[in-house]
Amino acid sequence: MARSWWGWGNDEDAVRGAELNELLGRVRALMPGELTDHRPPDIASLGLPEPRVTAPASLAGLCSAEPADRAAHAHGKAYRDVVRNLQGDLRHVPDLVARPRDEREVTDLLDWCTREGIAVVPYGGGSSVVGGVEPRCDGRPGAVTLDMGRMDRVLEIDRTSRAARVQAGVFGPHLESRLRPHGLTLRHFPQSFEFSTLGGWLATRAGGHYATLYTHIDDLVESMRVVTPSGVSASRRLPGSGAGPSPDRLFLGSEGTLGVITEAWMRLQERPRRRAGASVRFADYAAAVAATRAIAQSGLNPANCRLLDAAESLLNAGVSVGGGVLVLAFESADHPVHHSLARAVELCRDHGGEPSADATGEPGGTSGTESGAARAAETWRSSFLRMPYQRDVLARHAVIAETFETACTWDKFEALHRAVTEAARQAMSEVTGTGVITCRFTHVYPDGPAPYFGVYAPGRWGSTVAQWDHIKAAVSEAIEASGGTITHHHAVGRDHRPWYDRQRPEPFAAALAAAKAALDPAGVLNPGVLLPAP
Amino acid sequence: MARSWWGWGNDEDAVRGAELNELLGRVRALMPGELTDHRPPDIASLGLPEPRVTAPASLAGLCSAEPADRAAHAHGKAYRDVVRNLQGDLRHVPDLVARPRDEREVTDLLDWCTREGIAVVPYGGGSSVVGGVEPRCDGRPGAVTLDMGRMDRVLEIDRTSRAARVQAGVFGPHLESRLRPHGLTLRHFPQSFEFSTLGGWLATRAGGHYATLYTHIDDLVESMRVVTPSGVSASRRLPGSGAGPSPDRLFLGSEGTLGVITEAWMRLQERPRRRAGASVRFADYAAAVAATRAIAQSGLNPANCRLLDAAESLLNAGVSVGGGVLVLAFESADHPVHHSLARAVELCRDHGGEPSADATGEPGGTSGTESGAARAAETWRSSFLRMPYQRDVLARHAVIAETFETACTWDKFEALHRAVTEAARQAMSEVTGTGVITCRFTHVYPDGPAPYFGVYAPGRWGSTVAQWDHIKAAVSEAIEASGGTITHHHAVGRDHRPWYDRQRPEPFAAALAAAKAALDPAGVLNPGVLLPAP
Repeated sequence: MARSWWGWGNDEDAVRGAELNELLGRVRALMPGELTDHRPPDIASLGLPEPRVTAPASLAGLCSAEPADRAAHAHGKAYRDVVRNLQGDLRHVPDLVARPRDEREVTDLLDWCTREGIAVVPYGGGSSVVGGVEPRCDGRPGAVTLDMGRMDRVLEIDRTSRAARVQAGVFGPHLESRLRPHGLTLRHFPQSFEFSTLGGWLATRAGGHYATLYTHIDDLVESMRVVTPSGVSASRRLPGSGAGPSPDRLFLGSEGTLGVITEAWMRLQERPRRRAGASVRFADYAAAVAATRAIAQSGLNPANCRLLDAAESLLNAGVSVGGGVLVLAFESADHPVHHSLARAVELCRDHGGEPSADATGEPGGTSGTESGAARAAETWRSSFLRMPYQRDVLARHAVIAETFETACTWDKFEALHRAVTEAARQAMSEVTGTGVITCRFTHVYPDGPAPYFGVYAPGRWGSTVAQWDHIKAAVSEAIEASGGTITHHHAVGRDHRPWYDRQRPEPFAAALAAAKAALDPAGVLNPGVLLPAP
Repeated sequence: MARSWWGWGNDEDAVRGAELNELLGRVRALMPGELTDHRPPDIASLGLPEPRVTAPASLAGLCSAEPADRAAHAHGKAYRDVVRNLQGDLRHVPDLVARPRDEREVTDLLDWCTREGIAVVPYGGGSSVVGGVEPRCDGRPGAVTLDMGRMDRVLEIDRTSRAARVQAGVFGPHLESRLRPHGLTLRHFPQSFEFSTLGGWLATRAGGHYATLYTHIDDLVESMRVVTPSGVSASRRLPGSGAGPSPDRLFLGSEGTLGVITEAWMRLQERPRRRAGASVRFADYAAAVAATRAIAQSGLNPANCRLLDAAESLLNAGVSVGGGVLVLAFESADHPVHHSLARAVELCRDHGGEPSADATGEPGGTSGTESGAARAAETWRSSFLRMPYQRDVLARHAVIAETFETACTWDKFEALHRAVTEAARQAMSEVTGTGVITCRFTHVYPDGPAPYFGVYAPGRWGSTVAQWDHIKAAVSEAIEASGGTITHHHAVGRDHRPWYDRQRPEPFAAALAAAKAALDPAGVLNPGVLLPAP
């Protein structure tokens, strides 16, 4: 399998043939647009500038100056990244891609870059959608992308405590394949799972697939090793502690600005054996939200509690229903979960929900999701994994197709949803004349949901990045004004900075900048991410 | 009710009469010792030095120089604090006790102290057991204790999101009394509940009564306001976020060194209506630990999962059993919990546990704990609340009676337990010739327990602080060497510093010191806590 240099995942998995025709048919039914295909340029035609820096002999063997490497590491995987790749618009390309094999080599690379003032961009799977891996590091003599992909081993498994010591460069599938023989799983499945790494998840506080309890990778961390220009920070493996502010919580979400995460002890779980699931239809969206809130506050802690609004249900689950569909699932490695599902369904019925016929499942076994009436859930799930590929092919056809997400407290959700939807529609009307906005909950907390929005609009080839940027700015303003977070699990990077800067408390920013200056005195680590470049 | 100036809680609740005789009888049965009572000195006899500083006129009305105030704020509530009070040994007394009524006054007090270089000790309920509120601030022209007790209001309740905005100075019972009419509870019940405050819990990452899921106050925080000498840090109310390192997590556990927490939005819960509980006896401690681990890893998430070892069972639950007693409880505001209890009991039986006869309770109602066979649980619980009072009266009788706690991964527990027990016995043998050490789990995580140890030994009046310090140093060394944390939920303060300094990663300490310098440039906030005094 060959990784795409310009878009998501593997070239072989791109949307084509019948899937493409079906997708374009759905788009045509929804909106006008030319839908002409634009092919990615050859890397040779990009005319990348010569690297500005040369690694010292001792590190040269770790560094690649190949155009294909440099091009593939220039952007993340946001819509605006993919489109710019398609247009051959690569303004910030790393001078070198370094691939350390161990912690010593990470240290040596940081030492060299610190000495020379060269920007270092730590890089996991490169699936950032916020400009987190794009070396926009003006004023530096060069930029080196530090690709952690060679440090991908599971070093130790502690079956008793159910934990593993894992190198940061491991990709999701490889990690799970190493844990499976032990009956264990990290159970962290972001949409990027195949093409993102443990280190990337930790650095960006990634969100997994599960809706409650362990929503972010943060909660699964026992300890971390982080190489900083001022030394290695190694925290102690602990199940819990109250000894000062948590060291790990400073590095979680630091997005490569404080150090390079090289390994972590991660909490694992037994692989689930009991499952029960259902999908519940609602005629009224407010009632669906109220039911979802009741479940989120019930202490039932479903594995999945994904409320799709009417547009999302139609577009991605093929269900036409006025108030949306709530996809519910419970899982356990230890005990039956049908009581929990039955109670969650009862809460839905209290709010006018109509569950699929076999919703309550059978005691003692896997049930629900595999069977007929819960088909919407499965349809949605396979669609979920294809979404980035579909987004790419739509990008080639000048369709604007992108997502953004937030979280807010329940009391603010209705107003936030209205403000964001109106801002998106207004902005789409301004730049494209039309478009669709959808909403689903990816995670739910007792005190609020994490809504995830999708935007689909017919763009004008050559302008789709600017068009999307206009829409994104409008919805970001609406989120900010409505009390949401600029990101629930997509990180800040460089692109969320204007809103993040207003969201985070000013004294905290001063504390974070001071911490960075202590750990990275030359300011070489991912300049411009989270904080102004020094 | 009058608060004791020298010991725990209210003077009226002190151990006396039959309770005292029964307690001393139990101690006599266990160990030799004179057991002569030593009464606390009169405050007038302490000869406190005159205050070294005078508040400016605008703040004078908030400040007390009363000897009773200053004496009551000189120490926390550790055994060594109580004994030093009993001996009239108050070497570090605040010059003034300031009681701000609002955030403006907190700011003004910090401004004044920053200008003058006067140390500020933020103070909630004063229940620190680690020297966290003792103004050991040599080299400063004075020390002001900032008692937050006047800022004790519940400012707002959001019933929809189940959250409340609460001032930091509120004590546990007052907070719960304000939430009860709304059917809500913070459900955070540390042993100090009656005599500690929300702000204190947040500043020290306090642990509550519940064994799993929401163990520390950290998880219950939506947002915080913190007054620092460099401005007010106000985070946004969010149910979850991935926008950079969490601002709240920097201030949680900062123990008054980065700022003064003035208020927080806290996540609440419905008051539980369904309960089921049981106690399970084990002949073998290793089997009891294995059963507890199985439950901790089951995803059942009991509210209580408290394994008392044989000595703890005997001393505090009146049960004689070789391997200990596991006290189990499940609670819910939403759904029956007897299935969960039944499964947990089954896991115990798999490991040779013998549950109390009615352990599984009845579907649909409160059961178990109230009834006969689970009486050990209730006996233990009332004993739990009396423990600090008993400790104080034992301190008066020259008995060494103190606790300490840690957490470690399951794979390390057996060795840690052995090392700590042996270190305690050896140290007790050196300083007192004899003594008893007990162990219980206060909290359990999928990857490890939080063991809580009790030490009881016959001291020599006039030397009990030195004797305890010797024991504490020995067990702390054993914890550190065995891979535990120096504290799971009692904070670092000044007394845990030698071990904390070895535990926390050096680059993290540098980052924390830099953050402190940015927020508190004059270094006036609780100098010597967490970090070396600047």
